[in-house]
Amino acid sequence: MVKRYLELRSLDEALRLLITSFPNPRNTGRVRLMESVGRVVADPVFAKYSVPEVNISAMDGIAVRSRETIGATDQAPVTLDHFARLNTGNIVPPEFDAVVMIEDTWESGGKFQVRKSAAPWQHVRPAGEDVKENKLILPRGHVIRAFDTGALATFGITTIGVLAVRVGIIPTGSELVPFGVRPGPGQVVESNTVMAQVFLSQMGADCTRYPIVPDDPDRIRETLRTAVKENDLVLISAGSSAGTRDFTESVIRSLGDLIFHGVAVKPGKPVMLGKINGKPVLGLPGYPLAAQTVLREFAAPLLESWGFPPAPRFVVKARLGQALVSDPGFDEFVPIFVGRIGEELIGTPHGKGGFAQMSTVKANGYTHIPAPVEGYEAGTLLDVLLTTDPGSIGRTLFFIGTLDPALEELANRAHDDGLFIHATNPGNIPGLLALGSNSCHAAPLVLPARSFLTSYQPLMQFSGANNLAFLHIAAVGLGIASLEGFDINDLTRIRFINTRKDTPSRTVLDTLLASEGIDPLQVNGYLQEVHGPQAVAAAIRNGFADAGICTSGIASANGLRFVPVAHEDYELVVQKEMLADSRFRTLTSLIRSPGYRAALEKIGGYDLSITGTLRGLNGSGTLTPCMPGSLPSGYR
Amino acid sequence: MVKRYLELRSLDEALRLLITSFPNPRNTGRVRLMESVGRVVADPVFAKYSVPEVNISAMDGIAVRSRETIGATDQAPVTLDHFARLNTGNIVPPEFDAVVMIEDTWESGGKFQVRKSAAPWQHVRPAGEDVKENKLILPRGHVIRAFDTGALATFGITTIGVLAVRVGIIPTGSELVPFGVRPGPGQVVESNTVMAQVFLSQMGADCTRYPIVPDDPDRIRETLRTAVKENDLVLISAGSSAGTRDFTESVIRSLGDLIFHGVAVKPGKPVMLGKINGKPVLGLPGYPLAAQTVLREFAAPLLESWGFPPAPRFVVKARLGQALVSDPGFDEFVPIFVGRIGEELIGTPHGKGGFAQMSTVKANGYTHIPAPVEGYEAGTLLDVLLTTDPGSIGRTLFFIGTLDPALEELANRAHDDGLFIHATNPGNIPGLLALGSNSCHAAPLVLPARSFLTSYQPLMQFSGANNLAFLHIAAVGLGIASLEGFDINDLTRIRFINTRKDTPSRTVLDTLLASEGIDPLQVNGYLQEVHGPQAVAAAIRNGFADAGICTSGIASANGLRFVPVAHEDYELVVQKEMLADSRFRTLTSLIRSPGYRAALEKIGGYDLSITGTLRGLNGSGTLTPCMPGSLPSGYR
Repeated sequence: MVKRYLELRSLDEALRLLITSFPNPRNTGRVRLMESVGRVVADPVFAKYSVPEVNISAMDGIAVRSRETIGATDQAPVTLDHFARLNTGNIVPPEFDAVVMIEDTWESGGKFQVRKSAAPWQHVRPAGEDVKENKLILPRGHVIRAFDTGALATFGITTIGVLAVRVGIIPTGSELVPFGVRPGPGQVVESNTVMAQVFLSQMGADCTRYPIVPDDPDRIRETLRTAVKENDLVLISAGSSAGTRDFTESVIRSLGDLIFHGVAVKPGKPVMLGKINGKPVLGLPGYPLAAQTVLREFAAPLLESWGFPPAPRFVVKARLGQALVSDPGFDEFVPIFVGRIGEELIGTPHGKGGFAQMSTVKANGYTHIPAPVEGYEAGTLLDVLLTTDPGSIGRTLFFIGTLDPALEELANRAHDDGLFIHATNPGNIPGLLALGSNSCHAAPLVLPARSFLTSYQPLMQFSGANNLAFLHIAAVGLGIASLEGFDINDLTRIRFINTRKDTPSRTVLDTLLASEGIDPLQVNGYLQEVHGPQAVAAAIRNGFADAGICTSGIASANGLRFVPVAHEDYELVVQKEMLADSRFRTLTSLIRSPGYRAALEKIGGYDLSITGTLRGLNGSGTLTPCMPGSLPSGYR
Repeated sequence: MVKRYLELRSLDEALRLLITSFPNPRNTGRVRLMESVGRVVADPVFAKYSVPEVNISAMDGIAVRSRETIGATDQAPVTLDHFARLNTGNIVPPEFDAVVMIEDTWESGGKFQVRKSAAPWQHVRPAGEDVKENKLILPRGHVIRAFDTGALATFGITTIGVLAVRVGIIPTGSELVPFGVRPGPGQVVESNTVMAQVFLSQMGADCTRYPIVPDDPDRIRETLRTAVKENDLVLISAGSSAGTRDFTESVIRSLGDLIFHGVAVKPGKPVMLGKINGKPVLGLPGYPLAAQTVLREFAAPLLESWGFPPAPRFVVKARLGQALVSDPGFDEFVPIFVGRIGEELIGTPHGKGGFAQMSTVKANGYTHIPAPVEGYEAGTLLDVLLTTDPGSIGRTLFFIGTLDPALEELANRAHDDGLFIHATNPGNIPGLLALGSNSCHAAPLVLPARSFLTSYQPLMQFSGANNLAFLHIAAVGLGIASLEGFDINDLTRIRFINTRKDTPSRTVLDTLLASEGIDPLQVNGYLQEVHGPQAVAAAIRNGFADAGICTSGIASANGLRFVPVAHEDYELVVQKEMLADSRFRTLTSLIRSPGYRAALEKIGGYDLSITGTLRGLNGSGTLTPCMPGSLPSGYR
């Protein structure tokens, strides 16, 4: 048996240990004014001189001696012997004590007349009005904003002493290749330290990423020793689990003290904290989402306790679109996508796994499930911390169903019309369920050609709605992809790879085999299932299988031969009320536009003959008004 | 008569003209991944390869052929002939189809035993699970966040095509010196284009600042012609008012069309929009706050209409601490400081003038008063857009009264204890009024030494509160500053400069003159009033006056001679409930700390003998328990 985590600390306890064990190192640095936004003032900033340094005119006009204007009226104007013509900002010469606006003067023969007496110091900006020499402009702790730089420049400030912290980041792992290098089989790009550097730099940290250290305790120890010497905080990435090559804990123990290893937080459980020469060493788990959690929930609060400003936090209340299970005893952080449907914010959890990097990319927020909570029912109102601009939510259409490159192209074009499309890919049936519970705006569905299903009715009943509208995006050619070419008689000789049950392509394949009288179990690999057509193509290209079912576009993108067998309809399904939504109208125009059509033609493999047609489901489970006018050539 | 604004457009109308006249130039550029945060994706990002490219292990364990484990139980363990020892992330060799966790195996003699059958593909991450080759990772329009960079690095992305916009910024004005140069008399640092560059760069613009152009229409025209050629948007700073040297409008007309000049917005009225070769030219007013308004309310919305992300907007409801007057017909933007007093947010307007750069530096938000509104009563709830982290509000103590360097030093130190101090300087009486209406936490007051007032009671009645507590910060020496030295007999010979009525130093001076039997009007310049002691010292140093009253610290900081005549007490006055506030306790400890004392000694001019003493006002208007134990030496 290998070692396991001896104990898991609670998140609260771990954070308390982290914050109280490491007082502020009070490091500072200087930055140029133009690069100072977001930084925290460490050396109070004082004005280098008074502004204005002398009395200046606040108006375009003439400088006067106020006592010489006394008694001037419309009836008895005063012509001035002493004056100076000034524009706004000019010095008021010492012999004058007021400015009369040019509009209130009458010029004649090079002299000026006034018809009202001037009060002493009127329209004069006294020396030091804006700021006085040595006056405090920014106290310690001020977080510099863009508009502050104007005042700072005016007052003579070109560089600013700011809070600084040096963070050393050590990537470990023999399987890693550096960012920018294409990984070979079994290799992984070392991306967690890239993310750590970008994230902590945003807070104002000066980050040093050390070269990748292979899983060799001596080399890890050497690098860690150096990093502790050179930095205020060290992050060591990976090697914190319990595998045979996880040396981080023992290396920390050999150089200093281990404060904790293992916290009841998900993702992020293997997080580790050590203290070497009084400095904190934080062990980041290798899984990207776990590393993110540790950066956001451990590293960031430590820097905040040292005076660095937190990232802006927008919290909204969203209704949970589906149940969310949580492990009791663990503080859990779950990526959430928040969309606005009608007047309500709907939150949809994204994959919770440590691997699923795309889930935080696609989510626009996350929720924190406290340790005692076992989960939430669908419909629960919960707090979501947004990771994007809150204003973008109202401009986002939210789709759940089956994705296709045609939808990705649509998403790209939608942005040019000010729309965002957020789409997840759990499949047809989850899409229909979400559509029925008003948890998405539309369900993009891949429907087998009509001949493979007696009726769409049973499928559509998953939505529970009876007023569905179908917007046709494209028909997609479906067939058998292979490296070598394929004939139906090969089926029982070659290594086949399949898609999961209940996928449209599997339905087509099952129907075809039955019609040909072939027992699926005779097909070598028929039960070997992968996610979808993209994975089928990748498996064939990489030699794991000889043939499988996928779309013509995917086959050609992977350089595979393709034998067409059927087609699928790619439809955007909505509840009919959605047709009145201006965003959906924009989308419909977009789908019908020549530009979108041209883009799909460029991708290839689509039949666009009824693209943009709106249809409904009739009593016999058929889409009306019309079936595709003509099938693509080559289908049988 | 000089020209005036011919017409003022409404803000709405001006924005409509701005947005509709200039469609998106659709400029793009490439940035490195590490510098991509906050940028908007212009070229959709696709995965360069599948991740993982091959099947890999999701656990530390052994790779097995699942069919060889069938039937394994505790009673009938199966010893495996074929297996491979794997760590998490290792390739699962093609001959295996499942992974058994190391904890569920028993090793003996180099072979492994399992006691449970393995399901096909268990603990195997299939090729392409995270992302498939050519899969869309980021659609056009996605705003890149720090954590996105991890996924992008993993998926092979090193540079990203992003929205770009080139903004040319032209400073004009013969009175300007470049940022970093100390201005001579009548000169001003060219800071508005610095601020414009910093602000627009934050949005993702590539800014070019052109060298300062003097007020010469031909040279302005040449620079503008070049800038229009080289950029998508041109800002031309100043020269937009109606003075004799305001050439911007005529230069724009000579090269293209003027769309508008003059908008009913404050500050920012002289804003100008032109169109040259189809490109927008925006004329920024010269006053810093007016320039800020035009950057935030015109330039930023134009970039947003071109797809650039808005800055995060936090809006809070705050109760207005004092009445706020607005010019009906003008959309007005007013800097506001928001503080939390008890459970309530209180908003205090800061100077509205175009000059007052410090008002946006000290404010943490602003409010937009729509054109029809004439103003708001004190107590009105209004929307404030925050310009700082909302979390900082609860950590901020808010003072209104009279400022002194001793308070600035306190503010700097407070940040080390996690506190911010926001203080404004309208004087003693406004501070007392605010204290009474619960619109500030404390009023820092400069009180004339007891001998100059029969009772503090009348002064304190301005607060309307009768439960005031006084925390003594320091006693400040007051006297006559001069370049040449000063004797009481000089008073009627020299040029004197005074502080305003109702200031403590003026009270002291008036009392002293009366006791000496001197008529104030005999003193040359006695009625020439400046803001406060700092301005007095500056006026003397710059030769505008020979002598005036100020504090010993300010005199010595300005290199002036000083004849002490009295002292003032610098007190922090609070309602007694505030004594229970933990933030105020922190502050009291800070004032009593040796470090603070040492800092005040370093500044000089303070008597610290009763620093940190808490007192109350007794029936006879005296502070008890004690008056200062001993007056500083040299006072009479």
